[in-house]
Amino acid sequence: MNRPQLVEKMVEVIKKLPGVGPKMAERLSYHILKMSSNEIDKLIGSIQKARQIIKCCNICYNLSEHNPCFICSDVTREQDIICVVETPQDLIAVSKVKKYKGLYFVLGGALSPLDAIGPGDIRIDKLMKRLKNGNIGEVLIATDTDSKGEITAVYLAEIIKKLGIKVTRLGYGLPVGGDIEYADEITISRAIAGRTEM
Amino acid sequence: MNRPQLVEKMVEVIKKLPGVGPKMAERLSYHILKMSSNEIDKLIGSIQKARQIIKCCNICYNLSEHNPCFICSDVTREQDIICVVETPQDLIAVSKVKKYKGLYFVLGGALSPLDAIGPGDIRIDKLMKRLKNGNIGEVLIATDTDSKGEITAVYLAEIIKKLGIKVTRLGYGLPVGGDIEYADEITISRAIAGRTEM
Repeated sequence: MNRPQLVEKMVEVIKKLPGVGPKMAERLSYHILKMSSNEIDKLIGSIQKARQIIKCCNICYNLSEHNPCFICSDVTREQDIICVVETPQDLIAVSKVKKYKGLYFVLGGALSPLDAIGPGDIRIDKLMKRLKNGNIGEVLIATDTDSKGEITAVYLAEIIKKLGIKVTRLGYGLPVGGDIEYADEITISRAIAGRTEM
Repeated sequence: MNRPQLVEKMVEVIKKLPGVGPKMAERLSYHILKMSSNEIDKLIGSIQKARQIIKCCNICYNLSEHNPCFICSDVTREQDIICVVETPQDLIAVSKVKKYKGLYFVLGGALSPLDAIGPGDIRIDKLMKRLKNGNIGEVLIATDTDSKGEITAVYLAEIIKKLGIKVTRLGYGLPVGGDIEYADEITISRAIAGRTEM
């Protein structure tokens, strides 16, 4: 005997979510079947409400209940520096630090030649348009430090510098709390290059 | 800045699903916000439809589109043997083997003194009632081989034997494809006890 067809269908749909394998999809499906009506209403309701209300900010492309978002509407922030991140989650990670008081731009991904993701597939045109229109003196690139993020950073730096705008990148080095014994060679060599006087 | 409140709420609700941690809940939430309306309708629709149609069989407590389920309605199956499993997923795993042609009973969990789950919290009364009413000659216990499953098997064996019904348990031994080097001692000792002549 196989799973009932409707459970099968639910498993198939849930399996498409990121990070969810076949076993996990099965487990979630059977859990969902056992949930109370109240719990399931909460789950579906929270999804539908968020999708209804959450908008993509027309300036920075962050997700927010407002458009323009809180950050873009906040005139007390430094208006001449833009931090470029890959995703809204990255934006939140940077903004939690509070060291950065400027504006943001969410690319919506990273360049990836292997996956055929080129400049037209992420918001590079929109970023360039914003840079050309605005009074921006510096772009701080905060893409991931994996190969896709690196390629994106190098590509962006090249085209943004042509506009006469200063381009910076988050500093490399050892993560705080890290054990040097387990750090990889590239990280250590970058930490040496970026060493600071004490 | 934190996540928008509605995203926060969605993350909170999704985090309650089994096997989903805070990071995974965040990833799923942002993915759900990016999904097309068509995709989201499929996801929510498949959940709602399955919850609407899938029933718990009144005889074996398996989940099925029909009540009684296909297995309980199938008169060609052996009617005098019941395989007791913890969950509907376990039932499907056993039924796929096709070696077993009898009936089933889904307990809906296992005894767990540490979690205060006693006989009243799973369907032991309903199992006993079915055994008393029916013409059952053998109960094959197929609970998990972890400590909860073991406790449940021992408890069930004791009370079922009192009804004069034969109780059996799935054989222990090495899993097929397993490497003896990595098998634990208890499994090996049980495999020795259950050795078969070649």
